[in-house]
Amino acid sequence: MRKRRKRRICVVITARPSYSRIKSALRAIQAHPELELQLVVAASALLDRYGMVARQMADDGFEIAARVYMVLEGENLAAMAKTTGLGLLELATVFDNLKPDAVVTIADRYETLATAIAAAYMNVPVVHVQGGEVTGSIDEKVRHAVTKLADLHLVATERARERVIRMGEDPTSVHVTGCPSIDLAAEVLRDPTLNFDPIAKYGGVGAPLDLARGYLVVMQHPVTTEYELARRHVWETLCAVRDSALPTLWFWPNADAGSDGASGAIRAFRENERPRNIRFFKNMAPDDFLRLIYNCRCLIGNSSVGIRECAYLGVPVINIGSRQDGRERGRNVLDVGYGRRAIIEALARHLGNGRYPSDPLYGDGRAGQRIAERLAQEPLRIEKRLTY
Amino acid sequence: MRKRRKRRICVVITARPSYSRIKSALRAIQAHPELELQLVVAASALLDRYGMVARQMADDGFEIAARVYMVLEGENLAAMAKTTGLGLLELATVFDNLKPDAVVTIADRYETLATAIAAAYMNVPVVHVQGGEVTGSIDEKVRHAVTKLADLHLVATERARERVIRMGEDPTSVHVTGCPSIDLAAEVLRDPTLNFDPIAKYGGVGAPLDLARGYLVVMQHPVTTEYELARRHVWETLCAVRDSALPTLWFWPNADAGSDGASGAIRAFRENERPRNIRFFKNMAPDDFLRLIYNCRCLIGNSSVGIRECAYLGVPVINIGSRQDGRERGRNVLDVGYGRRAIIEALARHLGNGRYPSDPLYGDGRAGQRIAERLAQEPLRIEKRLTY
Amino acid sequence: MRKRRKRRICVVITARPSYSRIKSALRAIQAHPELELQLVVAASALLDRYGMVARQMADDGFEIAARVYMVLEGENLAAMAKTTGLGLLELATVFDNLKPDAVVTIADRYETLATAIAAAYMNVPVVHVQGGEVTGSIDEKVRHAVTKLADLHLVATERARERVIRMGEDPTSVHVTGCPSIDLAAEVLRDPTLNFDPIAKYGGVGAPLDLARGYLVVMQHPVTTEYELARRHVWETLCAVRDSALPTLWFWPNADAGSDGASGAIRAFRENERPRNIRFFKNMAPDDFLRLIYNCRCLIGNSSVGIRECAYLGVPVINIGSRQDGRERGRNVLDVGYGRRAIIEALARHLGNGRYPSDPLYGDGRAGQRIAERLAQEPLRIEKRLTY
Amino acid sequence: MRKRRKRRICVVITARPSYSRIKSALRAIQAHPELELQLVVAASALLDRYGMVARQMADDGFEIAARVYMVLEGENLAAMAKTTGLGLLELATVFDNLKPDAVVTIADRYETLATAIAAAYMNVPVVHVQGGEVTGSIDEKVRHAVTKLADLHLVATERARERVIRMGEDPTSVHVTGCPSIDLAAEVLRDPTLNFDPIAKYGGVGAPLDLARGYLVVMQHPVTTEYELARRHVWETLCAVRDSALPTLWFWPNADAGSDGASGAIRAFRENERPRNIRFFKNMAPDDFLRLIYNCRCLIGNSSVGIRECAYLGVPVINIGSRQDGRERGRNVLDVGYGRRAIIEALARHLGNGRYPSDPLYGDGRAGQRIAERLAQEPLRIEKRLTY
Repeated sequence: MRKRRKRRICVVITARPSYSRIKSALRAIQAHPELELQLVVAASALLDRYGMVARQMADDGFEIAARVYMVLEGENLAAMAKTTGLGLLELATVFDNLKPDAVVTIADRYETLATAIAAAYMNVPVVHVQGGEVTGSIDEKVRHAVTKLADLHLVATERARERVIRMGEDPTSVHVTGCPSIDLAAEVLRDPTLNFDPIAKYGGVGAPLDLARGYLVVMQHPVTTEYELARRHVWETLCAVRDSALPTLWFWPNADAGSDGASGAIRAFRENERPRNIRFFKNMAPDDFLRLIYNCRCLIGNSSVGIRECAYLGVPVINIGSRQDGRERGRNVLDVGYGRRAIIEALARHLGNGRYPSDPLYGDGRAGQRIAERLAQEPLRIEKRLTY
Repeated sequence: MRKRRKRRICVVITARPSYSRIKSALRAIQAHPELELQLVVAASALLDRYGMVARQMADDGFEIAARVYMVLEGENLAAMAKTTGLGLLELATVFDNLKPDAVVTIADRYETLATAIAAAYMNVPVVHVQGGEVTGSIDEKVRHAVTKLADLHLVATERARERVIRMGEDPTSVHVTGCPSIDLAAEVLRDPTLNFDPIAKYGGVGAPLDLARGYLVVMQHPVTTEYELARRHVWETLCAVRDSALPTLWFWPNADAGSDGASGAIRAFRENERPRNIRFFKNMAPDDFLRLIYNCRCLIGNSSVGIRECAYLGVPVINIGSRQDGRERGRNVLDVGYGRRAIIEALARHLGNGRYPSDPLYGDGRAGQRIAERLAQEPLRIEKRLTY
Repeated sequence: MRKRRKRRICVVITARPSYSRIKSALRAIQAHPELELQLVVAASALLDRYGMVARQMADDGFEIAARVYMVLEGENLAAMAKTTGLGLLELATVFDNLKPDAVVTIADRYETLATAIAAAYMNVPVVHVQGGEVTGSIDEKVRHAVTKLADLHLVATERARERVIRMGEDPTSVHVTGCPSIDLAAEVLRDPTLNFDPIAKYGGVGAPLDLARGYLVVMQHPVTTEYELARRHVWETLCAVRDSALPTLWFWPNADAGSDGASGAIRAFRENERPRNIRFFKNMAPDDFLRLIYNCRCLIGNSSVGIRECAYLGVPVINIGSRQDGRERGRNVLDVGYGRRAIIEALARHLGNGRYPSDPLYGDGRAGQRIAERLAQEPLRIEKRLTY
Repeated sequence: MRKRRKRRICVVITARPSYSRIKSALRAIQAHPELELQLVVAASALLDRYGMVARQMADDGFEIAARVYMVLEGENLAAMAKTTGLGLLELATVFDNLKPDAVVTIADRYETLATAIAAAYMNVPVVHVQGGEVTGSIDEKVRHAVTKLADLHLVATERARERVIRMGEDPTSVHVTGCPSIDLAAEVLRDPTLNFDPIAKYGGVGAPLDLARGYLVVMQHPVTTEYELARRHVWETLCAVRDSALPTLWFWPNADAGSDGASGAIRAFRENERPRNIRFFKNMAPDDFLRLIYNCRCLIGNSSVGIRECAYLGVPVINIGSRQDGRERGRNVLDVGYGRRAIIEALARHLGNGRYPSDPLYGDGRAGQRIAERLAQEPLRIEKRLTY
């Protein structure tokens, strides 16, 4: 009996958060006897000023099959469109060379559309991880457009599965795997001790911090369709955090059109206000990052980490603004607007309450394994129609 | 009381059929006191070998605000992705300059995704004309992906409206206008006499034809996801048509990845078989074209004209293959596979039957007017969420 | 003693004539013990309608390391710039992957600038074959701009060497190798019998021809900076050739901005004039082509083949217009303007005279070998300065 | 008598230094009765982190005809090639829309090749300002390649004129105008008082400075073909300047492939060494900048300002490394390597010597006027040949 050729699974990573979100699945694909992993690293995942994810991947034992430089500099919205256009030009060549049996695209960042389109137009089955969720801003459009280009849907929650099916996708092509980001959280939860010194290990810039008496973590991304306001939003959070006087680890925002607005606010605040309780970091290894989050007194910002991983980890979260609107959330999340007062009040409530119990809302820790199995077993088709 | 600034409506035309499909709406927008038309001509609509639509637009009294050359040559599928990527790069600049209040994109050709993405990423409301339909091949993915990027949906049929709403779009953003291509058909139907000599007026190449005793029209596009077969498919139709011995006007296919396959078949057939009843045309003015169709004994191929306009015009149609699968159709359509025998048999049935009664399935002739009114009155938003 | 790693020599071929011009060098590189050939095929060399050179390369035993689709469709001059821009984007990725020790670029077509720039900016030494010549039109600018980007110059004639040095290049970096296109001519000259039937082997379209009593060959490219006139120029030649009544093999022009002007003239002439002595061909294997040329009574047009190979082969040539202005030429060439009368008169003179003696002006048949040796032995640098 | 249409002169500015270098010519073009200025701003001239030149242009009364975003992010050399490729794609569209009678490109930055190629391929005469000079690195190749694409050469010095002519350009197309950057210097020299407080007006980050007792200025760009070393080079200069203990204004480097290497060095030095005598600036208005330079005790780095403007202003200059190799220079320049010791010693010599007399080596202050006159009077051709 002749052995079937391994399926070549091409996964395209375009940003720092996408990597930690898919890492356990990459491991499971790499380990699966019927799958061959083709890892493509693109966009801000290649750039130094967003934390150079490519190097971490190498350290984690992944080989990179192709690199795609595609981020156009510019503070205007046109740069988002052009970055995606460049990605489309380049990814077409990459897929032409790698000849994958399926292309995996993750979540909903704007440049992921380039991955989905290039694969769909070249008749390569598109696998979408984390479709069917609901949020604010341009991500909402991108996510569902990718769903309509995708042939296989591996979603995080039952709710997400229902939505994808209601959008007209064939129910046999939609599977709940949980979110692989929870897999890492589950690993960390087995022994969540903060076993490293963040400042010694990662440096960062700003105030020296003593983390012994508890600390905050902030991750606040600009909301792209409210470009002009990005600077003001972040300023409010900076003030609230400074006023709290708690030691704070603040992570730089990622590469969106408004990132320079947010980054500008941070730079100006540092120069003018010289805050004595805030230190700024670019990036950490996902394990370290989750351990840091687990041990913080409160996560503040609008990162999906607050909604997903923190549900599982039971970390108190202050979710600012509209970026995560529509996402299912656990009891650990308090939603507030952009004003500093609201942030301060929510912080007081959380500090009074402490940790929350673990909630398996976004996964139980075995998503990566399930994704690899689906990729090995599901039929890979490229023809589909609305089911109604 | 200060008068409201006119809404700038940017319509992007990327191919010959899109123009005739939207022309009555362009006129209505141009005539509307609260609207300003910004016409962008792109992709194969600019190319000589696809019939140079741009010149017709000028003749029809439309001013072109920007031209976007984006068609990459190449017989491979990667060219489709790259053409779209180039379009994205260029359209971002165009929208940056024109600053439209809304961008209108038509139907489902692969390069229309560039229009929808560029506008969506630049926070310009996207209006999609002719969403909610169901067909085969890559068009199906493109059409619904555009729906998920669009903010206002102007659809042709009640059935299409239902589908768009079921996909999770806000019902207040989905309106049945009918298909504007039917508007031209309705105009022509008032006096459908064949009032010009197609050969004298348009030339064409191939056999001289005597149209007096009745004639056939053929429009057969390559089906992109079955690239390799394009040549064979067209060859079968060429044989069937030759065998019919009826005078035949054959239109060249448009600019898809496989177009050279289909075009190659035609060239080879001409050289080797020297058919005495077939003449090949590049393009005609839409009015002339509809008049020609109205007076033919049968339309053969896989063009959507057979499904839409011919329903209204009551013209017998032989629809070949899977390209129009899933589209609602009237009694005038006989569906067949790619074999010459099936085509010949269907032709015999149609010739025995003659014309069909007019069917308003895709519109009643006032779609253009309704589209312009919606563009003037509907709120133009860029934020949306799944409704479930 | 450790063996030195082979030098990786990346040769980029962008068009049909460049391939026959470099083929003997490709063979010599492939055979050289210290060199490794990386063959990149790009632009019109990949396109069916320009004769699909890629397939011939495979038949000739060359492996293709990368393919670069970059030709933008469009009858306007902007398409030339955009094609080059696309090539630059893609070739940067190609060189990043192949990591060549040197990149070889050939002659002076507009898209060759993309090769030279991509390599120069990525600190890869650029080797220019066939610099230092003088012609009309945009090629003149391109050729010398490539010289200024190149680090090693392998030229065809002593005159060319002098010119490159006078432009300020280091004399030790400029070497006369002869033109490798002459190598093929030298091979053919050993037994130049027309040992195949061109129509039986290559088909072509148009009149049947009887070659027994002698025949003409025509190759006329559009002159890009006189875009509007391309059609008229070719028309004149078509008339002259028809009037000669001699059997004529006419080769389609290559992919320049005006190619559709020239191609349009040919198509229109065929339809309207139905010439009974002209047959049109896309391409032939270089060996067959040279054999065909050797045995013709006169070569007409503006191809550099008439200047180079025909000097060596002793074939009478009528060189039309300004395209080859400034190139050194042998006694076998008569220069004329675009008018049909001048062409007819020159033809009469050549037919009266017959063959010319072989002239080693552009090479002695060992250029390929010399190029490979230089590539193996010369120092590969990327730093240079004007010598004055 | 019918008045001649004004010549449309399109000037493309791609970086901060190019603007101050051409500003007086822009004014003269704007004021000339027979010229119309079309100003295109592109590449890093549009980016915030390189000092947002576009805003200064508006403040200076220039209207911007088109903006071209083209800078690709990435620390690798491929980004230079891709940025140029993108520029070529976009500038072709820009020139197609603006229909200039001539395009002016300045000096030798890598992305200026995009300007020259786009114009040359579209048959627009190319005017090159500041050709014929000799320096190190990739600029050398770019500058002379632009010369070979250009039709009119407006050079700074007699020496440069000789070189351009020796490269084979028609002597009637090469004119010495002087360098327009000297025009601004000449204006400032009429009253060179430091009439503003740099810190109050421009902010900057780093140490507070007291400029009363004299100060240094540093501008050190990474040398692109020595990418890996960029960080170390800048570190040496930082140490030398810190050790001098003199108040120092340090300008951020511009957008080359290695800019992040240099920027990284600066950021690390600030964090770790917290120098008390250095303050970092992004940019200043050209007038302020020249005034600042005039009054400094020494300019350190590798900027061409040190070679050109400082000759005229008589400012002591320490020129580091190979970047300005081959440029003619005055007695005010001391050349050193990258080591801190050499820099310190040269500084001691300059501080002991003081100012130098003004030297008209690169212009007499009327270059802008001369450039405008040449643009109005010279024939605008696109055909040229090597003169030998």
